[in-house]
Amino acid sequence: MRFDTVIRHGTVVTASDTFVSDVGIKDGRIVALAAELTDAEEVIDATGLFVLPGGIDSHVHLDQPSGDGIVMADDFDSGTRSAAIGGNSTVLAFCMQEKGQSLREALKVYHAKAEGKCHVDVSFHLVITDPTADVLGQELPALVEDGYTSLKVFMTYEGLRLRDDEILATLDTARLTGALVMVHCENEDAIRYLIGRHEEDGKFEPRYHATTRPIAAEREATHRALSLAEIVDVPIVIVHVSNREAMEEIRRARQRGQKIAGETCPQYLMLTADDLDQSEMEGAKYVCSPPPRDKASQDACWEGLEQGVFDLFSSDHCPFRFDDAEGKLNEKGKRHFRWIPNGIPGVATRLPILFSEGVMKGRIDINQFVALTSTNHAKLYGLYPRKGTISVGADADIALWDPNKNVTLSNDMLHHGADYTPYEGLDVRGWPVRLLLRGKTVVNDGQFNQTFPQGGYLPRERSCLTRQRQ
Amino acid sequence: MRFDTVIRHGTVVTASDTFVSDVGIKDGRIVALAAELTDAEEVIDATGLFVLPGGIDSHVHLDQPSGDGIVMADDFDSGTRSAAIGGNSTVLAFCMQEKGQSLREALKVYHAKAEGKCHVDVSFHLVITDPTADVLGQELPALVEDGYTSLKVFMTYEGLRLRDDEILATLDTARLTGALVMVHCENEDAIRYLIGRHEEDGKFEPRYHATTRPIAAEREATHRALSLAEIVDVPIVIVHVSNREAMEEIRRARQRGQKIAGETCPQYLMLTADDLDQSEMEGAKYVCSPPPRDKASQDACWEGLEQGVFDLFSSDHCPFRFDDAEGKLNEKGKRHFRWIPNGIPGVATRLPILFSEGVMKGRIDINQFVALTSTNHAKLYGLYPRKGTISVGADADIALWDPNKNVTLSNDMLHHGADYTPYEGLDVRGWPVRLLLRGKTVVNDGQFNQTFPQGGYLPRERSCLTRQRQ
Amino acid sequence: MRFDTVIRHGTVVTASDTFVSDVGIKDGRIVALAAELTDAEEVIDATGLFVLPGGIDSHVHLDQPSGDGIVMADDFDSGTRSAAIGGNSTVLAFCMQEKGQSLREALKVYHAKAEGKCHVDVSFHLVITDPTADVLGQELPALVEDGYTSLKVFMTYEGLRLRDDEILATLDTARLTGALVMVHCENEDAIRYLIGRHEEDGKFEPRYHATTRPIAAEREATHRALSLAEIVDVPIVIVHVSNREAMEEIRRARQRGQKIAGETCPQYLMLTADDLDQSEMEGAKYVCSPPPRDKASQDACWEGLEQGVFDLFSSDHCPFRFDDAEGKLNEKGKRHFRWIPNGIPGVATRLPILFSEGVMKGRIDINQFVALTSTNHAKLYGLYPRKGTISVGADADIALWDPNKNVTLSNDMLHHGADYTPYEGLDVRGWPVRLLLRGKTVVNDGQFNQTFPQGGYLPRERSCLTRQRQ
Amino acid sequence: MRFDTVIRHGTVVTASDTFVSDVGIKDGRIVALAAELTDAEEVIDATGLFVLPGGIDSHVHLDQPSGDGIVMADDFDSGTRSAAIGGNSTVLAFCMQEKGQSLREALKVYHAKAEGKCHVDVSFHLVITDPTADVLGQELPALVEDGYTSLKVFMTYEGLRLRDDEILATLDTARLTGALVMVHCENEDAIRYLIGRHEEDGKFEPRYHATTRPIAAEREATHRALSLAEIVDVPIVIVHVSNREAMEEIRRARQRGQKIAGETCPQYLMLTADDLDQSEMEGAKYVCSPPPRDKASQDACWEGLEQGVFDLFSSDHCPFRFDDAEGKLNEKGKRHFRWIPNGIPGVATRLPILFSEGVMKGRIDINQFVALTSTNHAKLYGLYPRKGTISVGADADIALWDPNKNVTLSNDMLHHGADYTPYEGLDVRGWPVRLLLRGKTVVNDGQFNQTFPQGGYLPRERSCLTRQRQ
Repeated sequence: MRFDTVIRHGTVVTASDTFVSDVGIKDGRIVALAAELTDAEEVIDATGLFVLPGGIDSHVHLDQPSGDGIVMADDFDSGTRSAAIGGNSTVLAFCMQEKGQSLREALKVYHAKAEGKCHVDVSFHLVITDPTADVLGQELPALVEDGYTSLKVFMTYEGLRLRDDEILATLDTARLTGALVMVHCENEDAIRYLIGRHEEDGKFEPRYHATTRPIAAEREATHRALSLAEIVDVPIVIVHVSNREAMEEIRRARQRGQKIAGETCPQYLMLTADDLDQSEMEGAKYVCSPPPRDKASQDACWEGLEQGVFDLFSSDHCPFRFDDAEGKLNEKGKRHFRWIPNGIPGVATRLPILFSEGVMKGRIDINQFVALTSTNHAKLYGLYPRKGTISVGADADIALWDPNKNVTLSNDMLHHGADYTPYEGLDVRGWPVRLLLRGKTVVNDGQFNQTFPQGGYLPRERSCLTRQRQ
Repeated sequence: MRFDTVIRHGTVVTASDTFVSDVGIKDGRIVALAAELTDAEEVIDATGLFVLPGGIDSHVHLDQPSGDGIVMADDFDSGTRSAAIGGNSTVLAFCMQEKGQSLREALKVYHAKAEGKCHVDVSFHLVITDPTADVLGQELPALVEDGYTSLKVFMTYEGLRLRDDEILATLDTARLTGALVMVHCENEDAIRYLIGRHEEDGKFEPRYHATTRPIAAEREATHRALSLAEIVDVPIVIVHVSNREAMEEIRRARQRGQKIAGETCPQYLMLTADDLDQSEMEGAKYVCSPPPRDKASQDACWEGLEQGVFDLFSSDHCPFRFDDAEGKLNEKGKRHFRWIPNGIPGVATRLPILFSEGVMKGRIDINQFVALTSTNHAKLYGLYPRKGTISVGADADIALWDPNKNVTLSNDMLHHGADYTPYEGLDVRGWPVRLLLRGKTVVNDGQFNQTFPQGGYLPRERSCLTRQRQ
Repeated sequence: MRFDTVIRHGTVVTASDTFVSDVGIKDGRIVALAAELTDAEEVIDATGLFVLPGGIDSHVHLDQPSGDGIVMADDFDSGTRSAAIGGNSTVLAFCMQEKGQSLREALKVYHAKAEGKCHVDVSFHLVITDPTADVLGQELPALVEDGYTSLKVFMTYEGLRLRDDEILATLDTARLTGALVMVHCENEDAIRYLIGRHEEDGKFEPRYHATTRPIAAEREATHRALSLAEIVDVPIVIVHVSNREAMEEIRRARQRGQKIAGETCPQYLMLTADDLDQSEMEGAKYVCSPPPRDKASQDACWEGLEQGVFDLFSSDHCPFRFDDAEGKLNEKGKRHFRWIPNGIPGVATRLPILFSEGVMKGRIDINQFVALTSTNHAKLYGLYPRKGTISVGADADIALWDPNKNVTLSNDMLHHGADYTPYEGLDVRGWPVRLLLRGKTVVNDGQFNQTFPQGGYLPRERSCLTRQRQ
Repeated sequence: MRFDTVIRHGTVVTASDTFVSDVGIKDGRIVALAAELTDAEEVIDATGLFVLPGGIDSHVHLDQPSGDGIVMADDFDSGTRSAAIGGNSTVLAFCMQEKGQSLREALKVYHAKAEGKCHVDVSFHLVITDPTADVLGQELPALVEDGYTSLKVFMTYEGLRLRDDEILATLDTARLTGALVMVHCENEDAIRYLIGRHEEDGKFEPRYHATTRPIAAEREATHRALSLAEIVDVPIVIVHVSNREAMEEIRRARQRGQKIAGETCPQYLMLTADDLDQSEMEGAKYVCSPPPRDKASQDACWEGLEQGVFDLFSSDHCPFRFDDAEGKLNEKGKRHFRWIPNGIPGVATRLPILFSEGVMKGRIDINQFVALTSTNHAKLYGLYPRKGTISVGADADIALWDPNKNVTLSNDMLHHGADYTPYEGLDVRGWPVRLLLRGKTVVNDGQFNQTFPQGGYLPRERSCLTRQRQ
């Protein structure tokens, strides 16, 4: 067979295996792994490089309306460009239902936002904010059949948070349809209460974003979400876990026999609440929810990655410009932390940070890296075996990593719309020097090669977690 | 000194001590404990008897409106009569705020219900169902000063349950005033959800009361209540705990350093969900919330009494007639378990059951009996040292127990308004043969001695739990 | 009745109650508690004072041989004198069996050491170091009948530590006789191993006493002791618990349904491993086992006292002189921490420290103080109701505490044989200004009143823990 | 390239991936995975079959002396034959050091036993029974370098069990050399104690094997082994875990941050203590240690496989003939359970049982099956990437599984030396219909194809667990 492309002499890595092999690509798919493949249009020399499945970032916010004149810093163009530069070939973004809006309408809006702009493949989670009988009983079953197989619900944020009865109804639909539900776990009422007490005490600076969202509020909501899932008898995903107490809730749920997926993010490994406590409004850069905690929580999250408490390592990319009246430093936000938009950019930095701090420092091995950043995302969100691995038949979504390339992170290399990165100046070891999307080189040596966006939309199968049960 | 009454040769028991002593009473108070007291108007021979502080039942529902034409089986007359027959000299009943009603108005109503009818001393917990800013910010601080120092909130029952923000506001008032909050922990939304699924499956019999209120729903609400209390930083009481998982939440909260009181009830030691699963509507007799669980849960609750997980052993007396269209067998209740009024009678049987099954069977010692049934109630609800113990200066509320008196429980001896007891036919060993209220004999050998009710209203100090913190 | 002594107007405190009452004493016993007692030989004015049962220190080492020319700093004279000055009316010392020695012989030796020298009442725990068939099968059953109802075994210290099979055999004897076994829980082999590694690294200073006895070694032995007790099915006492992990083992054992008593000591509330890490050999003063840990462990131990994890608060008084070649600074000890004798003085300071740091600072209430320092010791070690409380019929062992007396601790006021106290310079609030032993004043205002020692030997009943089971 | 063998159209499975691919084999190794491979000496049609890495059974006892005239039923011939029939291409057997014997001598003996007899590849764990300074300090470091990279220690069995100081010394050698230590966790002294009490009660039947080895004895030893490993700071493997309590110890150790591998076995999924409780001596067939527990323990072990508590699923094959005076029914064994040799045959049935009960019943997925039965063994015991997976460069150790083949297990198909299987009559779905060892077909359709044994000895690298740390 004549291959379109052969990647030669690289070290192929999957979620379980590491081996030196050539990789033969044809029609955008991997068709051969062998000691030596020769007959090819294009040969890419990967000597000394790791040949990894392209990263899948299953927790990315792009071009969402943020209310109050706040503008998210990335649309699908800049956001997926930034994803690609950071070694990702697929992102799962959120399609946010507006109150009163049908999910079909919402999807129409988000498909339009993404259309023709994506530099990597894209799919959508459906954020349920208005779980009417019609939405849950009529629309969702059809949409799940159509490949929208994951939902997200919020337990925090006014206007987004669902009440327990609404969460239960949504979980019940997931039970009936095989959809998988992601849950943002923080107790909104507790946060409101603490904001009130902070206001009484005249505490308005960014650092109080952290003290008004304590671990207890995350732990409570985590246990509640897990209990509701237990009662309905469905698996769920606990997203962006920030600390040991929430991790223990996941362990306890598994000890009870529940099927649960867990996720953490770079900010919980690399930042702490101290980062919010800086002079002037500098702390606003680090405002995200849950907030970063402390060093012990970082250690806990590292352990959780190593020990399998977490299945997913995602960015929760949610970018806002810092020095901008439509971003972090909007007028109200300067006067009160609660008006600082929540979220930080991270789709480009997720993989290099975990590679450098995790793999190169020996905290996790490179197979765990692949599992946590790609394979598990594909399996849990219904993209496997097409995405998420290097195996015969899979899409040729491949990132070549040079483990010896040292890079100092700086915002100007990240291609996102934000005007800062929380990781400015961080030295990382290892970098995704080339990215192939379905066999085509998208990024090479920091340069975008394609003349137009080639990313497509991905309908998805049901999750491995929900299929296993049916 | 010439005593009004001397109790001679009995074995006096307190929460920590057991000793043979005469007890000298003057003007309704205990004024002397001594090896031999002689000079008295009245001498009561207590040879072979235990001299215990009268029971305090801090969880009793009397004469509450139940909606839908349902009538509670006891008013303050029959309820306190039944309490006295079972060895209690004090009960704490609930004053239930109606929606839109001020607490002062509610208290007026309940004081009127109680006025002149009480055979034992009585005080009121305030049930907060409508926590307006006015109620919490204005009324409650004043009422706490006036001696209404305990509140109750519900996380279940439509019309009663509070949302988390309301619970937080109530706890905050407790923090500011030193009131102590009792919480009924079951997740109403989860129960509603399960009722819906049961209805789809055509499951309407009384036994489904138990399956729609699973342990997970109680565990969830317990953890949530404890977390909200942690966030506000106030102690709370978790009432009527039914199982090991909820107990573990209490243990975990204490492990985190929280001050928590726990309560369990006879139904969780003596009944199981199987009791609800009987032919015809017989199971309706045992419908209460949380429902009785299983044998392992009974064992857990016994351990919790022995090991200090629980501070309080109460009846949760909430009586309805069984064979009555205004009671358990109302028309709607016969067709669907959710219309069976929740609650069972128990104010008369609480003490004999714990004495017989606990003390006489060696599961707890008699000092624990006194602590769990009297002293801790007095301390936690601000009646100590006037009530709850046998010591110099305390009210002469005294129950004489004959440990060798065997009684077979039967409804006709219990003086309550219900037409059944869940413990019909149970053989108990040990019985309160005489009860003194402030020095006056109220019950002697199963007979009421007084010509008119002598019970009074008790304003209360703040709880030992909240005082300790201030 | 004419009393020998009446204590007037004091505030009497028991493990559960607090009340103002006169106390009437006759023939060395408390015979009356009453609002007013008049007719007495001697009247002691206790206005403004607390009238507490004399302290019982159930963990005291006196006049034990320590090998290698090391001399314990206290014999029964100085040790019990120091106990009395610190508010104690009873101490339980250890009778240490030598290898090859019968228990009767050992007892003869210790009775001789104590004879005529004791300023407070005394009894003996039997330390089992040579559990031969004869000792366990013949001697012990008879000795338990004779009132030696508690044993102690060591899991550490070469020459003292028992192997698991020996512990099991000892526990089995306890099961058969109703004796109660105290266990010192540290894994000797793990400690030896770590000492070896320290020696390889040239680490010989006192501070390495702490690092060679890590929490894991205590947690391991605690779990092992509890498991062996579970297998034999007997209660045990875990003595001198120093940290949260060992506390969790006790909680877990109770969660499994085991009956366990727990003990902690002042050194685990007031000292840390940093105290061992001082210039020169100063750290040797704080060498005891288990070693003091850190601030978080102190907090844990305080919580354990408040929440009932611990039943006993003892001194583990084990005094050595500091600046003395027969004490802490012996020749070998100066060169290697392992030769520094283990133990610190504390029989005089136990009660003032807990009173001041615990009661006066609001961490525990005064009833808990009485339970933890007196009543529970009496109940667990078979001295109740003769000792451990203020009630009719009990020995008139009474300490009058002035809660407003401020004292700065200094070694010269402690009457023990050691030349230092670890608490030198500590300011305490509250002091035992007078101590009565069986009605006779032993100490008054810091002065010993009696002309000769009046302490006697106390044979004991079985423990409440083992009696409850039989 | 012309392949020696091509396996066509099968579904290849690794620990993370599942994909349809041809497999090209050359010189005993896998050299190509591709959509279509054509040029081959031999083509094996795998349509409808799973192409799995050959099983690795890392816990197999073969030809060990058992004392007292007891003879193990399998030598390396029959044992590895049975392994091959059950889908295994590698077994790790134990080389048992005799007291006083050097490890080199022991290895000489076991190499001689295995030489020329093995039908699959073989390597040895070193069982340390006599950890002299010479053995630990001199021999072991050299042997680890030579490829004997795993050790085993026993906490039970007289003559085998090590004391804690010996375990610590062995773990310390592991720390210094990078060897990995497996631990059999049961408290020997506790078992002895219980045997003694059973003997007093005249309880000698096989079922008392289970009651003398309770869960508490396993939990205790598990926690102790983990604590010793924590103190030395080395990873260990807890082998043959039988119940939830021991699992919790593993979870707790991981929660403390320890690196631990866990193993369970078919007997803990399929048997219970009731199997030992049969008429006559039938129960002797099921005597193994730890003993099978109950249904709840089975559920726990299944959960542990699914949730990653266990990394390894092994047989603990330890075969004895049943109806044989040199086996289970030896003279002494018939009179007392303690003389019944411990162990059951299982090397042939391990994989079919897990495939049928685990994969086909949906409890685990097929990637987990591969991980638990092959890949993780290779990684943890230093055989990866040569063994344990289907990837380019790996040995062509391949099992073809027919998921639709139904087999009723019966002893006569198992090729082992025992005269029974504990799983007689069990219906399984799925069977390894063909086995290739380094490219050569060993078993085809239940028939052995080779004319002479082709298994070889495998020196090993260090474990992934210990390498990660260095």
